[in-house]
Parts: sequence; C-alpha cells; structure tokens
Amino acid sequence: MTTTSPAENLGAAQTTTADDAATAHVDVAALSEYLLGRWPELRRKARERAGDPRFHKDESLTPAEHRERTLEQMREMVAADDKIAWLAFPERMGGFDEPGANLACFSELVAADPSLQIKSGVQWGLFGAAILHLGTPEQQDRLLPGAMDLSVPGAFAMTETGHGSDVQSIGTTATYDPATEEFVIDTPFRGAWKDYLGNAAVHATAATVFAQLITNGVNHGVHCFYVPIRDAETMEFLPGVGGEDDGLKGGLRGIDNGRLHFSGVRVPRTDLLARYGSVAADGTYSSPIESPGRRFFTMLGSLVQGRVSLDGSAVNSAKIGLAIAVKYGAERRQFAGAGVDEMVVLDYATHRRRLFPRIAEAYAGHFANERLLDLFDDVFSGAGDTPERREDLETTAAALKSTSTAFALETLQECREACGGAGFLTENRITSLRADLDVYATFEGDNTVLRQLVAKRLVADYGREVKGATKTPAGMARFVVERATDAALHRTGLRRVSQAIADVGDPRRAAGHLRDAETQRELLADRVATMVEDVAMALRPAQKAAPDEAARILDENQVALVEAAAAHADLLRWEAFTDALAGIEDTGTRLVMTWLRDVYGLTVIERNLTWYLLHGRLSDQRARTVTGYVDRLLRRLRPHVLDLVDAWGYGPEHLRAKIASGAEAERQEEARAYYAALRASGKAPISEKALRTSRA
Amino acid sequence: MTTTSPAENLGAAQTTTADDAATAHVDVAALSEYLLGRWPELRRKARERAGDPRFHKDESLTPAEHRERTLEQMREMVAADDKIAWLAFPERMGGFDEPGANLACFSELVAADPSLQIKSGVQWGLFGAAILHLGTPEQQDRLLPGAMDLSVPGAFAMTETGHGSDVQSIGTTATYDPATEEFVIDTPFRGAWKDYLGNAAVHATAATVFAQLITNGVNHGVHCFYVPIRDAETMEFLPGVGGEDDGLKGGLRGIDNGRLHFSGVRVPRTDLLARYGSVAADGTYSSPIESPGRRFFTMLGSLVQGRVSLDGSAVNSAKIGLAIAVKYGAERRQFAGAGVDEMVVLDYATHRRRLFPRIAEAYAGHFANERLLDLFDDVFSGAGDTPERREDLETTAAALKSTSTAFALETLQECREACGGAGFLTENRITSLRADLDVYATFEGDNTVLRQLVAKRLVADYGREVKGATKTPAGMARFVVERATDAALHRTGLRRVSQAIADVGDPRRAAGHLRDAETQRELLADRVATMVEDVAMALRPAQKAAPDEAARILDENQVALVEAAAAHADLLRWEAFTDALAGIEDTGTRLVMTWLRDVYGLTVIERNLTWYLLHGRLSDQRARTVTGYVDRLLRRLRPHVLDLVDAWGYGPEHLRAKIASGAEAERQEEARAYYAALRASGKAPISEKALRTSRA
Repeated sequence: MTTTSPAENLGAAQTTTADDAATAHVDVAALSEYLLGRWPELRRKARERAGDPRFHKDESLTPAEHRERTLEQMREMVAADDKIAWLAFPERMGGFDEPGANLACFSELVAADPSLQIKSGVQWGLFGAAILHLGTPEQQDRLLPGAMDLSVPGAFAMTETGHGSDVQSIGTTATYDPATEEFVIDTPFRGAWKDYLGNAAVHATAATVFAQLITNGVNHGVHCFYVPIRDAETMEFLPGVGGEDDGLKGGLRGIDNGRLHFSGVRVPRTDLLARYGSVAADGTYSSPIESPGRRFFTMLGSLVQGRVSLDGSAVNSAKIGLAIAVKYGAERRQFAGAGVDEMVVLDYATHRRRLFPRIAEAYAGHFANERLLDLFDDVFSGAGDTPERREDLETTAAALKSTSTAFALETLQECREACGGAGFLTENRITSLRADLDVYATFEGDNTVLRQLVAKRLVADYGREVKGATKTPAGMARFVVERATDAALHRTGLRRVSQAIADVGDPRRAAGHLRDAETQRELLADRVATMVEDVAMALRPAQKAAPDEAARILDENQVALVEAAAAHADLLRWEAFTDALAGIEDTGTRLVMTWLRDVYGLTVIERNLTWYLLHGRLSDQRARTVTGYVDRLLRRLRPHVLDLVDAWGYGPEHLRAKIASGAEAERQEEARAYYAALRASGKAPISEKALRTSRA
Repeated sequence: MTTTSPAENLGAAQTTTADDAATAHVDVAALSEYLLGRWPELRRKARERAGDPRFHKDESLTPAEHRERTLEQMREMVAADDKIAWLAFPERMGGFDEPGANLACFSELVAADPSLQIKSGVQWGLFGAAILHLGTPEQQDRLLPGAMDLSVPGAFAMTETGHGSDVQSIGTTATYDPATEEFVIDTPFRGAWKDYLGNAAVHATAATVFAQLITNGVNHGVHCFYVPIRDAETMEFLPGVGGEDDGLKGGLRGIDNGRLHFSGVRVPRTDLLARYGSVAADGTYSSPIESPGRRFFTMLGSLVQGRVSLDGSAVNSAKIGLAIAVKYGAERRQFAGAGVDEMVVLDYATHRRRLFPRIAEAYAGHFANERLLDLFDDVFSGAGDTPERREDLETTAAALKSTSTAFALETLQECREACGGAGFLTENRITSLRADLDVYATFEGDNTVLRQLVAKRLVADYGREVKGATKTPAGMARFVVERATDAALHRTGLRRVSQAIADVGDPRRAAGHLRDAETQRELLADRVATMVEDVAMALRPAQKAAPDEAARILDENQVALVEAAAAHADLLRWEAFTDALAGIEDTGTRLVMTWLRDVYGLTVIERNLTWYLLHGRLSDQRARTVTGYVDRLLRRLRPHVLDLVDAWGYGPEHLRAKIASGAEAERQEEARAYYAALRASGKAPISEKALRTSRA
C-alpha cells in the first residue's frame, strides 16, 4: 500500500489561514455518500438492516435466549431477498462472487449486534469459507448449500485449548485407514480439545476440523476435514464426539462458544477438504504445493478475511461510541462558564482532547479499511491474485486489525467515561458494545502476535532490499557509508541543530513546517523505515548464533518489533486518509477534513515525540510546537464535529443511546423555563451568598 | 504527604550489581504480613470473608437475583460476630470508632464481589455516614441504628440526572413551612430527579436527600434531609415519592440503582441533618459555619472516605488481575523457544513489558493507599483533625483515586488480553471484575474533575508560596531572577549539555545515575513543581481579565492542569513506595522491592520522556538509557514475579480463575506424556518436513 497524493491535496493542507473559517464547513450528505465507498448500494442496504429492530441486540435476554435469537436472526437474513449473507459465495450456487462487498456489508452488521456479526462470521466466513476455499468444486457443490442456507449450522474447529496462535502445533490427529478409506479423528489429550468455537456449544451439526493429517506413517501437517458432529434431529452428539459449553463470556453472549473432542470419529476419505492436499485410496498423499510450510500458510490464507472484516467493524464500533459521546457532550452542561448558562462539556479543553483526535483516527481507520477491502477484493476475486499481493494483503490486514481493534476498545472506554455515570447505563449502549468488542483484540489473531508477523515481514523486505543493493562491493560500500552518515547525523543531533538554526526566532515557521503534508509523511515514513532498519541490523547476528544466543537477541528486540509494526499501521492509515482527501470535491469539506488529517498525523507524531527527539528528527523548537498546534486545530474543528460524526451515517436506530437522543437538551430547556418562570413570579428565593454580599 | 527516606534505603537502590542475583529473593510470608499494614488482624479477617463462598459473586444469577443476594450477604455481614461493617460507627452504638481500619477492610470486600462492596458502601459509607457526619448526636441515636442493622436500607440521594459533579447546582428544594414545622421536598423538573442511586430502585425505605434549603425566602444552599421513601411492609413508595429503576448497567448488577423524585413530600423540621445548619421553629436559619461556601464543602467533606476506599479497592482489583495473568503466563506455552519445550509466555519480552511494570505500579498504589489511610484515620478519628490536614486528605484522595481507578481498568484489560481468548471467558474472572470496576472511574468524583481539583490546590499552594517569598522587594527580585535563570537553563538546554559532558563515553554512568533514588525523586518532583509553576504563571492574567478572556486562558491551560495532577499522583506513589522500602527487614526482599520501585519510577519517567527532554532535564544520552535499563530490571525481576504477586495474599478463593489454578500446567504435562509414550512406542509418525530434509 504505497501511495502518491495529488498535489492540490497537499496544497489544501497548507492554506489554513485567515478566511478559512468562512470556507470551512462539512457537506454532511456528500461526505456520507463518499464514505459509502466502492459498493455504496450494498453498504447502504447492510446499514439499513443494522438499523432494523429485528436485528438489534436485546439487552433483556438471558444468554440462552440471546443465543437462540441470534440464530433466528441469521435465518431471517437467509430468508431475505437481498441474500447479503451470500455475497461471497459462487454465483453457480446462488451467491454473487463479491468478496469485497461481502466484507464491507459484514462490517456494518456490528451496529445491530456484534453477536450477530460474529455468529454470522462463524457460519459463513469461517465454516462456509473453509469449504469454499479449502474444498474442491465437488466438495463445494456437496457441502456449501447446507452451510449457506443454515440447514447445517457449523463450527470452525481450529483453535485448541492448548494452542491458539500457534496453529501448526495443534494436537488433534486425522489418521488415514486404507482398509475403510476413512480418516479417524482423535483428540489425544485434554489440551487438544477444540475450544472457543462459535456454534459448538449448541447449534452446530457439523464442523470443519483442523487436524494433523497422518497417512502411511507420515504426518503431512495440519489439514481441514468436514465432520458431522450432532444428529440434526435430536441434536445429540454423534458417536465419538463430545464437548462442553464454554459458558459465560465477557461479551458476545449471543454466541454459543464451546469445546469439542473426538475419539475414533470416522469420516470418509472424500471429506478431507482437498484443494491443497488429498489422499488416494491407498493412502498416498499428494498436494499441488510442494513445501509443507507454504502449503500450511496457503490453507490458512483464507483466514485473512476475518481480519479484514474485524478491522472494518472495529472502526465502525469506535464511530458509534464517538457519535454518542459527541452528541451528548454537545448538550450536556456542567459548571458555570463565562456566559449565563453552564458550559457545554464539549467546550472543555479536556473533552476536546479526549474525543476529537479519536474522531480523526476513526476517519483514518475508515479510509485504511476501504483500501484494505480493495486489496482483498483484488486478491479474492482473482482480479489481482499474485503471491506478492497476497502477502501484502496479509501484512496489511494484520497491521490494521491489530491497530483498529485496540483503538476501538480504548475509544469506547474514553467515550463511556466522557459520558460520566450515564455512560455506564446499558440504555446508553457504550458498555455493551465495548464488552462485545473486547475479544476482537485477541481472536482472529492475537494483536501482539499479528504485530510480530507484520514486523517480521517488514524486516524480511528490508533484508531483501539490502541484499539487492549490496550485491556489488561498491553497493555494499555505499550502504555502509550511508548508514554510518545517517546515524551520525541523527545521533549527534546535527540535523536537529540545522532545524533549530532555520527556525530561529520564528515559531510560526516551525508550526508551518508541521502543517505541511510532505513533512508529516516524511516524519511518519522515516520512523517506520528507521525502526525497521535498526531492528533488522540488531537481529542480523541471530542468524548465525547458537539457539540460546539467538533467543536472547530476539528477546532484546521483540518490543521494538511490535512497535515498528504499530508505526507501520499508523503510516498506512495516514496515507489512506491523505489519498482520500483528493476525492472530496467540496472545498469547505476538504478543508475541514484536511485539518482532521493533520490532527491524526500530528497526534501520532506527538505520541512518539521522544523517538523523534532522540533520533534527531525534530529540533526541540519544532517538537515544542506540536502540542500547541494540535490544540489550535482542535479548537478550529469544534464547530464541525457534530457534522463529522453525522457523516458516518449512523442514525438513532444505529446509536440507540438515550443520552444521544436530544433528551438532555430537552431536560435543560425545561429547567431553564422553570427558573425563568420562578424569577418572573417574584417568588424566587434569594441566595444566602447574595444576601451576605449585599449586606457587606 | 512529604517524606524523608532513611539513607540505608537509598543505598539499597544503588547496589544492584554482581552478587545481587544470589542475594535477591522474596520472603513471601514476611512481605505479605508487611503489606497487611496498620490493622493486620482486621484486614486479615476482612480478606478471609472475601474468600468465603457465601460472599462471592455468582455469575449465573439474573440481575434481579443478584440484587437480592447482595442484600442477603449484607444481612449476613450484620449478623456476623465480627461486625466489620460497623467499624466506623460510634462505640456507644455498638461500633468501634475505627474509621481507617473500616476503609482498609471495606477495600478487601472487592475481592468477593464489587457489587457487595459498593452496595455496602451505599448503606454504611454514604447513607449511614451522612447521618453520622451530618447529623446531631440526637439524630445519630435516633436514625443510625436502622442504617447500621439494615432494618432501614437507605439511598444516598445527592446526584441528579442534570447535575453530577456540580453538586452545588442541584435542583431539588426543601422549603420550610413554619405552620407545620416541616420541610417540603420538591423535584421541580425532570433534570432534578435523583439518579444513579444505589438501593433506590428496590430496597431503600429511606434516603438522605440533598436539597436546596429555603426558609423565609432565602436559599441557604445544599443541605441533607432524612426522608422515608417506601412503606417498609408493602415496599410501595410513600405519598409524593416516585421513581424508576436505572435498569441494566455495564457492571455492578448486584446493585439496584434507581431514580427518585419528590412532590410536596413533608418531613419534620428535626429531620434536617443539623450538624452544620439548622432551622428554628420560626424558620430562622443558623449554622456554626458562617461562609455558605465553606459550609457546603465541609458538609461534602465526609464524602472523601468513598474516594479513599475506592483507591484501595481499585489497587486490589488490579492485583487480582495481575496475579491471574502472571500465574497463567508462567504456565502457558506457545511457540517453540530455544529449548526443547515451547516457550512460557511470561518469558516473552512483550509479556514482561505488559505485566511487570504494572506489578510495580500496583505496589506503588498499595503503599500510597496505606499512607492515605493513615491520613484519613488521623483526620476522622480526631487525632489530627486540622483544616490543613483535611485539605491534604481531600487533595491526596482525589489524586490517588483518579489515578488508581484508571490504572485498575487499564491493567485488567491488559491482563485479560495477556491471557488471550481464555481471558475473555467469565470463568477466568477478569472481564467480570473489569466490568464492575468500570464505573469507579467516574463515580465518587469523575476522574477528570478530581484532577482539576487537585491541580487547583497545587496552583493555589504555589500562589501562597510566591506571595510569601515575594513580600519584600528583595524577595521579589530573587524570585524573578531565579525563575528567569531556571527557564534559561532549561529552555536552552544548558543543563542537558552539562549532563552530556559529564557522561561522555560512559553509558554506564548515565544508567547508574537513573538507578539513584535521589535522581528519580528529583526528576519526578521537579516535573510536578515545574508543571505547577508554569501553569500558575500562565493562569495569573486570568485573575484580572474579563470573563471571556479568563475562560480562554483557563481553556488553554486545562489539559496542563490535569497533567500536573497526574504527575503529582505519580510522585506521591513513588514517595510512598520508597518510604515503604525502609520497613522491609529482609535484605533479599528489600533488594527485589528496590528493583521494583526503580521500575515504577523509571517507567513513569519513560512515559514522560518528551517532557524531560523538552524541559532540558535529561540529556539525550541519559534519556536513551532509560528504556534499556528498565528492560534489564524487568529481566532481573523475572524469577521473582510469582513471589511478588503471591505476597499480595490472594489465594485461589480470591482469584477464582480456572486458568490460574494450575490446570494449564497439568494439561501440558499430559500432552508431554502422550508424545513421550508415542515416541517410545515407535509408532510416532514422521513429519513430512523431516522426511523431505532427510531425503534431500
């Protein structure tokens, strides 16, 4: 995801001067339309569904009732004419072959009920997708219809109690028996029980089970098997299958997560999902992919869609929280201000600081997800399915999912606290949404593990680059000199000193510098490049070291790896936001959105100011202007924030928070009228304080 | 809370060298005993109660059942011989006059069920305490027994829908009627409904109601009235009283929060809680406190105990989360390491970084709460009840409560994520605890409001100091010169340059410098002093400015005010931790605890490194050593972290998390045994990968 921004767009960033206040405004309808992205009609339809009360989370249900209702809602989705649930499935089976649009719509479902989103994701995005992506056409024809129309609710049995992130080490085995042409599925010990599986506790009658495929005494690694687990009539476990309910969870209580285990469960040879590996009747294994490692990662590749959609729905959830907190904050008054009325809490500097940068980040996250959807659609529609693009897709999805899910949780918490005690009431939505979103940080790839995956890719890319550049002795010499010069320039602070000299006596020049989009880009990109380079150089000796020493070197750099990945995600989001500015036609809207992009870029820089100082990228003087300039931008954005959250297109049917309904303003109006009438009546008591003052 | 630390204690901080590894250990039993603090027997008893299953949160209950059970648990507490619930009440009424011990014990109750803690707090710490602290001895004798023995469950009706933090602006009125010698309580508009009141939805038969006291046409400000609200037999609202249930909340579902409103409800003149203000039969108002402002703040002063106890229980909750995550992390293995086995996740650098600094901060918070309890006990026992100490108490409680509640929420979230998907299951406790703790951030004083209160006090103190120092022209001149010199020294980086010169070529000296307790103290204290001074100087023009201009100046400095308060709390906690080291007799334990204190101090400095750089307090070279030195300390602490969390004294009956029970290690043992037996049998499949390698 590299980018080139049109010049006029960079220009806009620099002209935030005198008469801008007059120009600045937000065309809410147009911006809202723009945000619908590449599949506006489908997304609109999905958002309408999310606003339909039939699909809303009902907070009054018991967990058991909530589970049943969620399944019922999925059945209604299947029954609906639009068949949005089938967007990703093949046309020949009644689907639409629209993988990107499918995820865009799926991300909207979170506004109805995250349990509905995730249980749908289990059925169609994991169980169904495993058949679609890992099965042969014959297997698709045979097994997909039941998954699509919900006649076969299914579990995706990959994770085990003992192994989550490290799927390669799962313990479940599928041993081929040539005598009967069957695989025998076994759970050899408690740690190999399948765990945390949606649909497994109650509803699933089948599962796509990942197991070590063993035939002729050879373990060919993890493969996926289609395994019926319950009698569809009695809903009793089939022979050899057992399991238990995972019980209550911190959220997503509309999903029946459970555990499964297998003892000598036999499935026909033809129910190994055989696209990437199959076993002949005599037990001979074959695969179109030679390398067991590459085969494994190819099979797991389809999981990327979960990360892409969680990224989108995490951003959407943050938007919902922010819209609620901003609407309430714009009405809620507390403590006297300079005027007659008490002050609206959104006018407090602390409130601006708590909420506005998060509005900017939500926009950055939105645009980054749009581009991720593009990339996903390219790869999965087959339009641009190259190994490089697949790798890009996986890295980008991992970088964005880990960032946006963490962002959503922090944002929802900030919003809940910004609404005070009212934010804690379930009727105001935020705590409920946050509880459901909590697990997004660790499922479909633990965020810390994902960031290491991203960083390893960045380091590997850097390694390839260096290898290319240093193939000749001259190239190597140049590389060494450049690195040494760069380090000297930064470590000794020479670059910083030159900035300080350029800015002497002119703080405006320092601030103007930061407003420039190219400066922001350079600061963000340089940080990623430098962090990756530093950690790559630090890791080099590990390649030739003894295991213990290699482990020590990795240990010393692991935190830096994770930080480099986070910095990479920040850059991706900034680039996406900047690119998106070019598509905004209305000048006033583009101006406000450019301020917002600046807030995003500069708050990222502000968070990492220590790094910029210690690496000599910013002079003290320039660094000192960052916070003040961000504060000025936040004040400038104040008149537009309600428009900015409205443009996300969430109405009361999506927000569903009493405090965001105008009730607070009504109550204040009533109180104001009461006091006015009291004063007019001449019966208003005089305050003791006033009395003492007048006496004195 | 200033402090002087014994020299030997500072010495310990500096000797973390070669043979320390041999000395370093934790005497868990002795440290645990030490942490019991000033009232060890009572605290032990309270912790035993928190471990008793009868008082545990039952996750399977419906909210309605949970509410009933919580009340039932409170009745059991009253029935118990120890009468811990009555510690704060007067001896003459069966209590113990032990205000400090009472809060220490109350903070332990969070380990049983936060709903039980907070509902108890409503009954005895708010409703009962209002009678105790705002009532006359006659009123105490008459009204306290019912509050104490739960024959009168009560609500504390202060907050209104329209006014939370700004209590002075509440709308409920109590108008004196001399004809009947009664007060007439009225809720004039919807915003004046009492809201978020524990006990109000179902159980309360009476309430202590805060209202504007109006007599003879004068409003004497907010006073508290004892108002029966429900018929104790039928539990119907009494005439003129109405209300509704607040419904579901994000947590604390064992508490029946509700709303109340009053229409012409009459209470006898003698039921105005009259310690700080009374009305004679003819309607004449009198008060021992002349100033209405000071009277108001005196009446609200007793609320400080809520903040003191929330501080303690927030720290305790963080400890529970950390103990669970550390115990699981020490057993859970994922991905191959350098050895034969997979790596224990606690050995990952990222995991150390996520959890260990929080262990240090929990200790800092613990010791700070101990000192806060001392201060509270001094004031409320009467042993040291001066206006200055009351003010100190309020400032310290506000600083610590706002810091520890935020810390607890972030820590519980980090712990939940560190446990992966297992952390999301209710059976592993953390999500449930976090949901309950959520509201601690905004009730009993919104954290952002509390921090402003702290900062205003710090700024006022600074003003008094300056005023004193600059009374003479010579003093004024000295002040001006000192400030100018200091600013020049820091702004121009001269001090930093001198550090750089001192450290040249010797990174060890730079790190050694940070290890020194006096350096840490100076860095932390200097930051608070400078921030307060800067903001005080910036606010000065506001005193003489027009309202709009004054508001603008305040707005520009509000974020800095909040940050100064947070820095103050960090310093208080560091001081408390450092003081506590002196009381640890065992050398090995003191050494480990000193490392831990260093981790706390240095991570605070690390978080604020930008400030130290931009204010010229640390040279680049010294700043660059901070992170590396913290990382070294974390590695050094690794062998001791299980001991450090065990010393908190929470057994399985307090943690109640399946993943912290040893089950994970058992499962791994079983898996290991399975694979060993398989290898021994000669029937183990060979991996395709190994086969390919051997063939090649």
